Amino acid sequence: MKKYVYMFQEGNKDMRELLGGKGANLAEMTRIGLPVPRGFTVSTEACTSYYENKEVLPEAIEKEILKSLKELEKITGKTFGDTKNPLLVSVRSGARASMPGMMDTVLNLGLNDEVAKEFAVTTNNKRFVYDSYRRFIQMYADVVKGYPKSAFERHLDKVKEDKGVKFDTDLDAEDMYRLTADFKKIYKEIAHEDFPQVPEEQLLEAVRAVFRSWNNERAIYYRRMNDIPASWGTAVNVQEMVYGNIGSNSGTGVAFTRNPATGEKKLYGEYLMNAQGEDVVAGIRTPSPISSLETEMPEVYKEFESLAKKLEDHYRDMQDMEFTIENGKLFMLQTRNGKRTASAAIKIAVDLVKEGKLTEEEALLKVEPKQLDALLHPTFKEASLKKGTVITTGLAASPGAAAGHIYFTAKEATEANKKGEKVILVRLETSPEDIEGMNHSEGILTGRGGMTSHAAVVARGMGTCCVSGCSELTINEEEKWFKTKDGKIYHEKDAISLDGSTGKVYDGILETEEPSISGDFKTFMAWADQRRTLKVRANADNERDATQAKKFGAEGIGLCRTEHMFFDKERIFNFRKMIMADTVSKREKALEAILPYQKDDFVALYKVMAPNPVVIRYLDPPLHEFLPTDEEEIKKLADDLNVTVTEIKERIASLKEFNPMMGHRGCRLAITYPEIARMQTRAVIEAAIEVSKEGIKVTPEIMIPLVGSVKEFTFVKEVVTQTADKIIKEANVKLSYKVGTMIEIPRAALVADEIAKYADFFSFGTNDLTQMTFGFSRDDAGKFLNEYYEKQIFEQDPFARIDEDGVGALVKIAAEKGRSTNKKLSLGVCGEHGGDPASIDFCHRAGLDYVSCSPFRVPIARLAAAQAAIKNGGQL
Amino acid sequence: MKKYVYMFQEGNKDMRELLGGKGANLAEMTRIGLPVPRGFTVSTEACTSYYENKEVLPEAIEKEILKSLKELEKITGKTFGDTKNPLLVSVRSGARASMPGMMDTVLNLGLNDEVAKEFAVTTNNKRFVYDSYRRFIQMYADVVKGYPKSAFERHLDKVKEDKGVKFDTDLDAEDMYRLTADFKKIYKEIAHEDFPQVPEEQLLEAVRAVFRSWNNERAIYYRRMNDIPASWGTAVNVQEMVYGNIGSNSGTGVAFTRNPATGEKKLYGEYLMNAQGEDVVAGIRTPSPISSLETEMPEVYKEFESLAKKLEDHYRDMQDMEFTIENGKLFMLQTRNGKRTASAAIKIAVDLVKEGKLTEEEALLKVEPKQLDALLHPTFKEASLKKGTVITTGLAASPGAAAGHIYFTAKEATEANKKGEKVILVRLETSPEDIEGMNHSEGILTGRGGMTSHAAVVARGMGTCCVSGCSELTINEEEKWFKTKDGKIYHEKDAISLDGSTGKVYDGILETEEPSISGDFKTFMAWADQRRTLKVRANADNERDATQAKKFGAEGIGLCRTEHMFFDKERIFNFRKMIMADTVSKREKALEAILPYQKDDFVALYKVMAPNPVVIRYLDPPLHEFLPTDEEEIKKLADDLNVTVTEIKERIASLKEFNPMMGHRGCRLAITYPEIARMQTRAVIEAAIEVSKEGIKVTPEIMIPLVGSVKEFTFVKEVVTQTADKIIKEANVKLSYKVGTMIEIPRAALVADEIAKYADFFSFGTNDLTQMTFGFSRDDAGKFLNEYYEKQIFEQDPFARIDEDGVGALVKIAAEKGRSTNKKLSLGVCGEHGGDPASIDFCHRAGLDYVSCSPFRVPIARLAAAQAAIKNGGQL
Repeated sequence: MKKYVYMFQEGNKDMRELLGGKGANLAEMTRIGLPVPRGFTVSTEACTSYYENKEVLPEAIEKEILKSLKELEKITGKTFGDTKNPLLVSVRSGARASMPGMMDTVLNLGLNDEVAKEFAVTTNNKRFVYDSYRRFIQMYADVVKGYPKSAFERHLDKVKEDKGVKFDTDLDAEDMYRLTADFKKIYKEIAHEDFPQVPEEQLLEAVRAVFRSWNNERAIYYRRMNDIPASWGTAVNVQEMVYGNIGSNSGTGVAFTRNPATGEKKLYGEYLMNAQGEDVVAGIRTPSPISSLETEMPEVYKEFESLAKKLEDHYRDMQDMEFTIENGKLFMLQTRNGKRTASAAIKIAVDLVKEGKLTEEEALLKVEPKQLDALLHPTFKEASLKKGTVITTGLAASPGAAAGHIYFTAKEATEANKKGEKVILVRLETSPEDIEGMNHSEGILTGRGGMTSHAAVVARGMGTCCVSGCSELTINEEEKWFKTKDGKIYHEKDAISLDGSTGKVYDGILETEEPSISGDFKTFMAWADQRRTLKVRANADNERDATQAKKFGAEGIGLCRTEHMFFDKERIFNFRKMIMADTVSKREKALEAILPYQKDDFVALYKVMAPNPVVIRYLDPPLHEFLPTDEEEIKKLADDLNVTVTEIKERIASLKEFNPMMGHRGCRLAITYPEIARMQTRAVIEAAIEVSKEGIKVTPEIMIPLVGSVKEFTFVKEVVTQTADKIIKEANVKLSYKVGTMIEIPRAALVADEIAKYADFFSFGTNDLTQMTFGFSRDDAGKFLNEYYEKQIFEQDPFARIDEDGVGALVKIAAEKGRSTNKKLSLGVCGEHGGDPASIDFCHRAGLDYVSCSPFRVPIARLAAAQAAIKNGGQL
Repeated sequence: MKKYVYMFQEGNKDMRELLGGKGANLAEMTRIGLPVPRGFTVSTEACTSYYENKEVLPEAIEKEILKSLKELEKITGKTFGDTKNPLLVSVRSGARASMPGMMDTVLNLGLNDEVAKEFAVTTNNKRFVYDSYRRFIQMYADVVKGYPKSAFERHLDKVKEDKGVKFDTDLDAEDMYRLTADFKKIYKEIAHEDFPQVPEEQLLEAVRAVFRSWNNERAIYYRRMNDIPASWGTAVNVQEMVYGNIGSNSGTGVAFTRNPATGEKKLYGEYLMNAQGEDVVAGIRTPSPISSLETEMPEVYKEFESLAKKLEDHYRDMQDMEFTIENGKLFMLQTRNGKRTASAAIKIAVDLVKEGKLTEEEALLKVEPKQLDALLHPTFKEASLKKGTVITTGLAASPGAAAGHIYFTAKEATEANKKGEKVILVRLETSPEDIEGMNHSEGILTGRGGMTSHAAVVARGMGTCCVSGCSELTINEEEKWFKTKDGKIYHEKDAISLDGSTGKVYDGILETEEPSISGDFKTFMAWADQRRTLKVRANADNERDATQAKKFGAEGIGLCRTEHMFFDKERIFNFRKMIMADTVSKREKALEAILPYQKDDFVALYKVMAPNPVVIRYLDPPLHEFLPTDEEEIKKLADDLNVTVTEIKERIASLKEFNPMMGHRGCRLAITYPEIARMQTRAVIEAAIEVSKEGIKVTPEIMIPLVGSVKEFTFVKEVVTQTADKIIKEANVKLSYKVGTMIEIPRAALVADEIAKYADFFSFGTNDLTQMTFGFSRDDAGKFLNEYYEKQIFEQDPFARIDEDGVGALVKIAAEKGRSTNKKLSLGVCGEHGGDPASIDFCHRAGLDYVSCSPFRVPIARLAAAQAAIKNGGQL
């Protein structure tokens, strides 16, 4: 028969999958002889059985729990439900990974009216017993039954108020007794039944509640945000109570072995005397810093200090511990690797290596790559932040902190910024036309759109702070104001501040500070670079981004989206002229006017990136994205081009598509209008010649987008090589360039062996590839994806983390087929996945050569690539 | 060294790939001893070399041609360019498959001024020689140089007019001489150079011209229409001239061994005395029927009759022959399998089996499946058609003939038809709202949209005649008129006739006749059914289509699109109510009102199809397709639902999608609104119970559309089985049903092993699968696909013929993976490809179980499936 319940003494820290993090660590502490109250863990497999059994706890597991309870009674010498020497327990959830979204803790379980009555006599401490009982009722109601805490808390406040005292500790035994009676009454009012009196029933209900909580909404959301599969399940820990609330030489606290904010090597934490666990966090009384314990209970402090060191040395990582002091005796209730800020994480990792406790590889695995982001962006000064008033909260779309004056159009934002003002661009949603304004803004706020909306994607690319989807705000772009939920109105030029790392929007100007990249960071990243086999390039469309990327360690540009270059005010006119042209020669003339600009762009990029490669993707989006949408702009364009408004409108209408995502774009444009590809080739090659004449090494890599069949590729490649080779020959220079393709259409992956015969490189455009493989567009999927997460059809956002089974399968097919016909084929990823650690791990396993991501993701990608190399021990 | 040129005596009929059809048959006739003028064939490989060599004829090939010419001189005893005994040749193109789009024939090549002069003397027939020369100049100019024939023809007409004669034969030697001189002058005017006098140059130029013609626009178009790959290339046949124009006991003609219109076993053809080849087709003089030859030249006729029989017996198929009589001696110039009408094809195939000349398998391979279509639709009576005036030509979108009075809205068409009027629905383009009107129309004409537009697809499904994309017409739906290119205006109720097989639109009412399916057809199809292993089902959404399908031999319904059922006037209101509902219970109420209708639909389908299976696809299109689009309808809906117009408009706006193809549709709807799937399940199961109580066998197969991941499928399947099993249990009956899925999202194919664990069947929705795999939408691809065909990036329309390399690869992956986890998995195709013979061949090879196509394609699919089985000798 399968075993579902383990006594602490049966487990160890490596049984995390079975016992959960908390259970495994309790077992480990027991094993290495720390003072841990005894108990047992109901395994994660029991949770899985519970769900497989249609959310009914199988009888066999119930029996095993009760059997383990007997065992616990035996080793503690206490008896569950016994009135003289009762065994009381805590019940805690504990998944493999720590999950704040789930049910947490019920203390003092096992108490009922009779036990309490007698226990008060035997302990001679009525106050302690009823303090424990009233806490139990409230926690059980909240955590097991899901009834609101507030009803109980309001009543407690009233009792304190009536008595004219401030703290729980000021209530005496009789107060606690009455409070218990009142709490039971409140419980009955809400539950329509009496508070359960059978301890075994209390226990099994609590276990079931923990299992149920695995699938509550918050837990599902948290799992999705943190890549935790639903199949893992949670364990339940049942542990003998020790009492921090039994008197004034008892207490409870939490502490870290090092400072989790700075990484400083010094105990950090706080504690409360005469209290139980939740009091410390609840903030009813102000806890004392852990250092005070040294004077208050020097012996206990000394023991704790030594245990903390023992634990850190044992786990070889900074520990986050909970402890309770019962009548002067120290008990350890939990230990785990402590959460820490990014800078602390780096400092601790580097320090642990210096202290000889970790190898460099181990240290690299200790830091969550995504955390690094926090080190790269400005933040609000702590003091300023504390004073700030939050006016709304949106999605934390692009990290950083920004403060400035609001403008409602890209044009006005640009103008204000050019006059030296710091501006925040506020839009319902942004479109490619807003690029310039976004570029001139400190931060961007949008009313609509999710984490992958235009604003979010572009802002992340730029490294500009962005809060998107502030749906509580009413935004009136025309009248230039927005209204908060509370009815406060902000007009143009009013000041606000955005925190793109939390999604919070503040009133007024908050002070920001620039990130300081410490020496530890450099050391750490150097270790990462030594281990990784994947190269890391950046997606950058202009000199600013390229410079940023290089600063962050990018080894080339993996994606330069040339279309972004066309939105510049001076160029868009000629580009529109090109679109409006009805003959090849008119089109060529308009393109001729863009050529010098485009060439300059490339000159700048080459110079910044030299000697690393620059991948230039040819025009990709459908032409209608470049045409104006509002009447005024249309009128202006008509005047400029000397045609009628009707003609412009007809052209716009003729370019309208039912499914623009699947329309006339990518290489399809270059096939219909080879003159565009010719102009772009001229710009790429002429710029390269110019730069190389200065003695700078240039390697342009021309990338054809949206290829689905080999002949599309060879057609455009022919246009490119004919143009390029002619220019190179005429210039009488030596210049090599590459021509490759995006793999972003499922068919391209399936016929990759054919394409690879002619292509120098493949770059997986996993954004589009994900859309096409799943058959849904990012813009529209928002309407149903939430249901998908709620109903657990999807656990992950496939646009954030690569879908290995589907999209990944195509990537592998393409890589394998491509290399089968072209041994030298270079393979990379340039979708958003290129900056996602889990996806980077996949890229490593799939044997790709590089990932390319937005500049601010480069350090993340470098670390993730190193972790992938370490974890997988080389390519699979 | 590779051999590029073959003398006729070196080849045989099996060398078609190398020598082309014409060349192989000339060699074969030579081989079996028929009187064939001698010659040689420049192979298709020479054509390929020509293109590989950047459209320059490689010198080696030129040399080989001239060497073969020497050989020809040797065996004929004539010399090229010799003035006394000149060798003149014909030059003809000849690809593997006959291709009318290409260059055809140049006769009398080798003539020049000197040769002509002397040859007139030696033959003592100046008229003959200059008749030949003037013909040569015109043909060379036209065929080799691409200069217009009209300049020459106009001049010839003028000469005849001046002389007051009607026929060429009335011109004498001097006339011909002058004509030749004039033609040379005209040539020079156009070409700005003299007519070439060097025979070898004439010959090589002609060969190059044939190779060039392989890639002219018409040839590319023809290849695409007929599935001929560009890589095949064409051969060139160079043959000693024999002269049908040498005098009155000479002549030329064409004949079939059987009647190509009816299949009757009797020589059929016509000839002209004193003429060269092109005169017969040109229609300058009226040719005589072949039977006249029996009296005119009985010996020659007898010989011809015997040769014809010999050829038919040899090729075991009806032959289409060209012959020339030179001074009473018969020469065979060409033989090939004759083109024939569908009914002739069937009769000849069946007769040849009866005559013991073919096996049934061979006979089945003789009929082109697509031809059968002509046997299933009404046609115009020959006499009526001859009198008809074509007012415009559109795309032959759905075959058949229809005559009626025009209406410009679906509503008015319906009403008129209900009053007994035959109507033609004329629309700019149709939308799903027009379904009822389309159903009530004899034929449909649209101004926009291609072969795969809504009108075309739906009309083909209904078997209703449709001419789409009549872009020459100006259609004003609001004012109810259309205007032809010539300015003629047709108003509502005016009469027109449509030929959906040619795309022609006629003025007034033409008489139609119903198809008569002969006994031979039945015999033939029975042979097909015995051989095929693929089952053939039909796509049918209503009783009418299902009945039609059954009549044509469908073995079940492979796709019933339930959404079509919702467009009915009485139902759409409730469906819209459902869409507008803001709570589940309101939605359920609206669905409840639709249930009885939907149930009735299924009852009818089950009864027609019993005992064969009926596959019912659940709601697929995005909801916005069901909402009204014009103001009036919106107002009406608002009134009916007792909400404001604004509310309706807001709902419409909220349902708007950027890329509807990749939006909230298919199973995504059933996941968001499980109540829709529940209602549909009730209808499916309750209808099945009702019908099975009558003792009729029912096998409903429920199909979930647009599944991309296994959890989507299991979620909806759970909704289905819970509902269905409850109803079945309550009804206390035995009823089995299946639940399967469409495979139409690339990802579904990649994870098919997972899905197959839970699915009873897969049906490949190759329309959507093609869109997603290529990443372009059918609606938008029209804008660039023409360029793709012109630039030879695509040779085939992937929506018409399955793309084996991409889409087919996914089908194979899905089939293999699916069967790996579910041995009983049934596999079918229900996209438009299910009715395309080449795609059916692929389905057979991929090991699918069935194809499903529109009712009128069922016989085609049956034959194609039989051919696939015969050709592939069972499953691969």
